[in-house]
Amino acid sequence: MGTSVTTYLQENREAHLQELNDFLRLQSISSISEHKQDIRETADWLEKAFIRAGIKNVEVIETAKHPVVYAEWLGAGKDAKTILVYGHYDVQPVDPLYLWETEPFEPTVRDNKLYARGATDDKGQTFMHLKAVEALLKTEGTLPFNVKFLIEGEEEIGSPNLDAFVENEKERLAADVLLISDTPMLEAGKPAICTGLRGLAAIEVRVKGTKGDLHSGLYGGAVQNSLHALVQLIATMRDDQGTITVDGFYDGIEEVPAEEMESISALGDGDKAMKEELGVNELFGEPGYTSRERTWIRPTLELNGLFGGFQGEGVKTIIPAEATAKITCRLVPGQDPIDILEKIEAHIRENTPAGVTITTERHDTGKPFAAPVTDAAFAAAARAYERVYKTEVAYTRMGGSIPVVETFDSQLKIPIVLMGFGLPSENFHAPNEHFHLENFDKGLETIIAFWDEYGKSES
Amino acid sequence: MGTSVTTYLQENREAHLQELNDFLRLQSISSISEHKQDIRETADWLEKAFIRAGIKNVEVIETAKHPVVYAEWLGAGKDAKTILVYGHYDVQPVDPLYLWETEPFEPTVRDNKLYARGATDDKGQTFMHLKAVEALLKTEGTLPFNVKFLIEGEEEIGSPNLDAFVENEKERLAADVLLISDTPMLEAGKPAICTGLRGLAAIEVRVKGTKGDLHSGLYGGAVQNSLHALVQLIATMRDDQGTITVDGFYDGIEEVPAEEMESISALGDGDKAMKEELGVNELFGEPGYTSRERTWIRPTLELNGLFGGFQGEGVKTIIPAEATAKITCRLVPGQDPIDILEKIEAHIRENTPAGVTITTERHDTGKPFAAPVTDAAFAAAARAYERVYKTEVAYTRMGGSIPVVETFDSQLKIPIVLMGFGLPSENFHAPNEHFHLENFDKGLETIIAFWDEYGKSES
Repeated sequence: MGTSVTTYLQENREAHLQELNDFLRLQSISSISEHKQDIRETADWLEKAFIRAGIKNVEVIETAKHPVVYAEWLGAGKDAKTILVYGHYDVQPVDPLYLWETEPFEPTVRDNKLYARGATDDKGQTFMHLKAVEALLKTEGTLPFNVKFLIEGEEEIGSPNLDAFVENEKERLAADVLLISDTPMLEAGKPAICTGLRGLAAIEVRVKGTKGDLHSGLYGGAVQNSLHALVQLIATMRDDQGTITVDGFYDGIEEVPAEEMESISALGDGDKAMKEELGVNELFGEPGYTSRERTWIRPTLELNGLFGGFQGEGVKTIIPAEATAKITCRLVPGQDPIDILEKIEAHIRENTPAGVTITTERHDTGKPFAAPVTDAAFAAAARAYERVYKTEVAYTRMGGSIPVVETFDSQLKIPIVLMGFGLPSENFHAPNEHFHLENFDKGLETIIAFWDEYGKSES
Repeated sequence: MGTSVTTYLQENREAHLQELNDFLRLQSISSISEHKQDIRETADWLEKAFIRAGIKNVEVIETAKHPVVYAEWLGAGKDAKTILVYGHYDVQPVDPLYLWETEPFEPTVRDNKLYARGATDDKGQTFMHLKAVEALLKTEGTLPFNVKFLIEGEEEIGSPNLDAFVENEKERLAADVLLISDTPMLEAGKPAICTGLRGLAAIEVRVKGTKGDLHSGLYGGAVQNSLHALVQLIATMRDDQGTITVDGFYDGIEEVPAEEMESISALGDGDKAMKEELGVNELFGEPGYTSRERTWIRPTLELNGLFGGFQGEGVKTIIPAEATAKITCRLVPGQDPIDILEKIEAHIRENTPAGVTITTERHDTGKPFAAPVTDAAFAAAARAYERVYKTEVAYTRMGGSIPVVETFDSQLKIPIVLMGFGLPSENFHAPNEHFHLENFDKGLETIIAFWDEYGKSES
């Protein structure tokens, strides 16, 4: 790595941030169909961004839903190693809008943090890999390895079409290592390599009772209230200590290797920091586990939304005819998402309250992932982090899900280095998402350092 | 009553319905503050309508919230009896709008039914009394009794200012009988005089957990989910058979007199008709009671609305930071609304889930009402109904609440005749509210017949 790369990044910092802002302004919400065109424009924007960065071989590839952007630079030749970078250009929805201090799609810097939907998850971090390659190409004219980019537009909806894409394009995607920057650092100043991700299983539950909403005076007491029925059903899924009571929910969970448990314990329980960060006096979860264990190695069943009846100001004396709940589970190795959905469906059948009919719709699923960190690429990533952040890297798991990681693992059979630059406090998926620009700068340095260290490990 | 009154009503039927449509177009939703001006315009519209009907002595009287419209015609002189008519010009909210077949504030006739918010509850029925008086005045030039109208704009929000108004204006409101048309007939073709109303107690419950919504991957399992906490709290308030489990909820309920229980039993349990009307296979409610008993003489705790988290299309993997539930109870004689709210608040304190704070806000309250039907005015109303509908009137109770009735009872100490013309199936408070125009015509005849019969009972 020459000084010129650092200089290039410093001299172009403002221009790069402006370019990132353009990326962040595109409203690429993958779950909401009215944003289909925004998604398309974002893929097209990325195509041009690759070309500007010096990677001419780029394609926007159709899937059944949102396109994949694939780019490659193979100038290092057949005998050189190949780095595959995965990221996603789609983002989460932004409601409730009123909680955002500035508009989610109008990037704003406050206190050296860049606020925008996608700033940290994952447009900002994807963009850094692109700029790192650009810096190397523009200053040194070449790269020591081949590089491939696979940037998808469906991560936030569970990557429904990427599994098939990866299976079909195994040859095109062939590489020696997969880099992903979509997991958080342990905390400010403390980088982390993530060795496991939770899986996901999502289901929507709809209760239907009477033909329409009813006057609660004329009918109240004589007919089932759909909303109350849904509440009573959902209440059967978790006890008041936080243990999930869906039959068989915890069956088959793989034990975490003793060595990994020790390294997790060494990081502390994380309770105090979490309480302060979230503004609560008390944490809550499955008895017998620390907060870190609850989020890293234990599964959840979480109510993401529930609604029915009157939501306006004041009182409306109705018996709601319909109610809906949205549930997602986070899963750990040994659990299968389809099996978990079947268990929830069985639980619903067995616990359906009188006087209503219930329908369910399965949404996203993703398998959990955990892998040992034996390849030289992990050591290179650790050294790169340590060069820039001047501290030892932590090996962590992440409570979130990147469903396609398990697919990459099983299809490509290459080491997957999850080296992220976001902080856990950066409001992933929530209002006021942001990205610390300190980690934009250090992250770029770390990626460049990784290329250098990975090269050394080769020689 | 001369033929000329009937002729007048027939000849002016279209004009009266057009006038009613103008009344129904005014969006007088009392619970939503942005409709304050609509409420005001509706009161002003009523003032003009009274003047057109020949009642010049009319006033729009301010209260702390929405005005009362008071009108009187005292031309029968001091020695004549006085009829007081109560009604309300405010209406319920209209959401969810998409369930309305035609716009709620654009009155439409289909199949001889007039569809609009307020058509049956209570603008349509209030309007009939006004037109009955108009018909008598325009054809006979005078009335056999004095008449006073008290039309309020806060019934749907629990009449918060009418109690004080009635107390302060006892002398102005002095009368021999109070007529109210805001209760339903037993069924099509079967009129009813209502002898009891349930009371009301409304409360809003708000749960607050973390500072903001959280990513369900990063934090899921380690922190309380406000929405799930609310669900678990609400589930403790009712068992799965439909019995309310708030401590002391059923304490002190007065026994219904044996004679009245017999007359209720004689009407049948009403189950079959209710199932058909509501489109359900199964009814649901407090064990040991028929549907009629559950709605007429037993109290309820009903969830009118609950919301938290993501409500959009698809999936959003958040842990909601806030959730809200809206609850109303219908109360029967022997229960006091404030006492019931205190019991619910105590239940919430004792059952607050870990990791959240809960606040409550009391909304509307209204005392239950039940009275014996001994005055001559009841007999006059029964004969009037029988003349027009050619069938015996039923004596019923109503599950709904007209909170001010108990105030009229305790303050004015006059017989209160609840003679309504709506049908239970007319979607009070729900989408597609309507009024059968057959009962508009027969109702006008019945009101005119009441004036005649009440006169006979005097002589």
